[in-house]
Amino acid sequence: MQDLSRRHFIKGAAAASLAAPFVVSRARAASSNKKLGVALCGLGSLSTNQIAPALLKTEHCRLAGIISGSDSKASEWRKKYNLPARSVYTYDTMHRMANNDDIDIVYVVTPNALHLEHTLAAAKAGKHVYCEKPLEISVERCQQMIDACKAAGRMLGTAYRCRFEPHHLECIRIAREQELGPVRIIEAGFGIDVGSPDQWRLKHALSGGGALMDVGVYALQATRYLTGEEPISVTATETKTDPVKFEEVDETVTWTAQFPSGATAYCTASFKVGGIKNFRANCERGWFELDPAYYYGGIKGSRSDGKPLSFPQVDMFAAQLDDFARCIKEGRQTIVPGEEGMQDVKIMRAIYGSIHTGRTIRI
Amino acid sequence: MQDLSRRHFIKGAAAASLAAPFVVSRARAASSNKKLGVALCGLGSLSTNQIAPALLKTEHCRLAGIISGSDSKASEWRKKYNLPARSVYTYDTMHRMANNDDIDIVYVVTPNALHLEHTLAAAKAGKHVYCEKPLEISVERCQQMIDACKAAGRMLGTAYRCRFEPHHLECIRIAREQELGPVRIIEAGFGIDVGSPDQWRLKHALSGGGALMDVGVYALQATRYLTGEEPISVTATETKTDPVKFEEVDETVTWTAQFPSGATAYCTASFKVGGIKNFRANCERGWFELDPAYYYGGIKGSRSDGKPLSFPQVDMFAAQLDDFARCIKEGRQTIVPGEEGMQDVKIMRAIYGSIHTGRTIRI
Repeated sequence: MQDLSRRHFIKGAAAASLAAPFVVSRARAASSNKKLGVALCGLGSLSTNQIAPALLKTEHCRLAGIISGSDSKASEWRKKYNLPARSVYTYDTMHRMANNDDIDIVYVVTPNALHLEHTLAAAKAGKHVYCEKPLEISVERCQQMIDACKAAGRMLGTAYRCRFEPHHLECIRIAREQELGPVRIIEAGFGIDVGSPDQWRLKHALSGGGALMDVGVYALQATRYLTGEEPISVTATETKTDPVKFEEVDETVTWTAQFPSGATAYCTASFKVGGIKNFRANCERGWFELDPAYYYGGIKGSRSDGKPLSFPQVDMFAAQLDDFARCIKEGRQTIVPGEEGMQDVKIMRAIYGSIHTGRTIRI
Repeated sequence: MQDLSRRHFIKGAAAASLAAPFVVSRARAASSNKKLGVALCGLGSLSTNQIAPALLKTEHCRLAGIISGSDSKASEWRKKYNLPARSVYTYDTMHRMANNDDIDIVYVVTPNALHLEHTLAAAKAGKHVYCEKPLEISVERCQQMIDACKAAGRMLGTAYRCRFEPHHLECIRIAREQELGPVRIIEAGFGIDVGSPDQWRLKHALSGGGALMDVGVYALQATRYLTGEEPISVTATETKTDPVKFEEVDETVTWTAQFPSGATAYCTASFKVGGIKNFRANCERGWFELDPAYYYGGIKGSRSDGKPLSFPQVDMFAAQLDDFARCIKEGRQTIVPGEEGMQDVKIMRAIYGSIHTGRTIRI
């Protein structure tokens, strides 16, 4: 099903227009059946609780190195995952990875506004780059990341884990095959109680934005992969109830988007209100939905016609990394290239533009 | 529970600012324990399939007359409901109702843009008026209806049947008592496949608008009675995929609204896409929702904490008419006065204003 959905997606106008040609050294990639080595760049809670455990389950890649600014974290990880000393780096020594054949991929899991710096360093060291969402904080910085990886002949992927999750893939199939008719109105929202006021997500210089950039991107992505289209306009508003905690970034954003086919989306993202975590795609002859759609597990689906929309839960971090590793080995482009991440950043900047001007923004 | 909710609602700022003082002749109203007589003005499918059957179940009122432009319909109804000839009127003979003590209330069920004319005629004949939603097509016309009923010393009610439905009343209670914390983000939508291209709903002169005016008003109402507040701004977009059928009126509208407390709503209304019929109120400590929320029956509720949100189904048309009749008998104001209907029209006109200007509209 994954292959089917990928084929469908790549056939779609959206992916076709975004997928940059990717050239990989097939000779090098195919020279080994060994698992590709992944270095985790940034050892925060996502790396600790999700990605490192996922890398124990992957078939085509494994944890092979770490990059951290913290000596104590590095030392702890080195012991826990039995990493060789030469595969432990700081942000300042990433260039030395060029001499480390154990590392094929750098997975950038640092704050949003550091993605560019760490991607440039990894690409310069000859590594493929997988990067957490959002890709960066501006279109220009995303483009620099794309250009750097292209110049280095390395692949850049955006960590959109839902794109490798079977419920989401089934929803994409239902949409593309118009099993319930054309998708007309999508409702999508993701809200969390963001927690501690001290975290980098609330500092504009590091995050580039708040709820929209961090969780809204999931809802935005969903509206794009369900329609298979790019929005032509967005209209947005912001609500702030805690101007101290959310002094620098958006607390709650709502937006609507219009697509070329006449599909419409109405969406929200919040750092204040948890429990919103769904999409529902209303088609001409029925609807399908996921709720929860975006959590790390427990994804649940339903359809208006009562047919099941249920699959085994997968480790989405393992699934996306295995796919990326296979793309490298097989010399084919990922379905989540840097261009895909950049497109969402472009739309999110338009959403902020709409908030600031009080006007609909054409994209 | 209905009384509790009404008390809570009336205590709220929204209702308090809208409820006009209503003076009724207690002597006359209380002089009889008989059921009040209702004349149905407009014998379309809503009157035929919902309201007339409901009037067979009401405790405090009964079908006592009809007003129709169709001789054949009038004759059919007269037989079916055993109505005296003198209680059968045309739109042109409504003034004669002044001499008919069997009729206490005129329920206006004609196309939106005829509500004013028929309300004026009913008020002039000394009848109380219950009027289908939306109250009229402009704020000015709503105000004329309110003024006319006030001048005649008669009550004007807006037929917001959900306000008398136990699931909705329970949701209002949960919201007012902040049982799950303050309401923060409401998602609400109502979409139907409107059907025949020949109907008055698609003629702007008769309807004053399309999906928003006809079904969007339910979602808009919900955002207001769940927050207990009036929106301070609205931002909206329209999507049209069938410019022939929907040449004169909106096909699909999405809007967002901001409320003084910091609550936010994101909403849709559609004449193209059925199956959207819900609201979900996301509060600080959980959510509650109804889906379906707005159908004539089969209302279903759920809460994030798993507690039941389930009540026996009621006939909402019977419930609202019984409440209106009791208000008249007891000389107290309805919770759905003309001002309540006018407020929604005001907000809907602002939503259309936002669509036309591409800008957020402050209200």
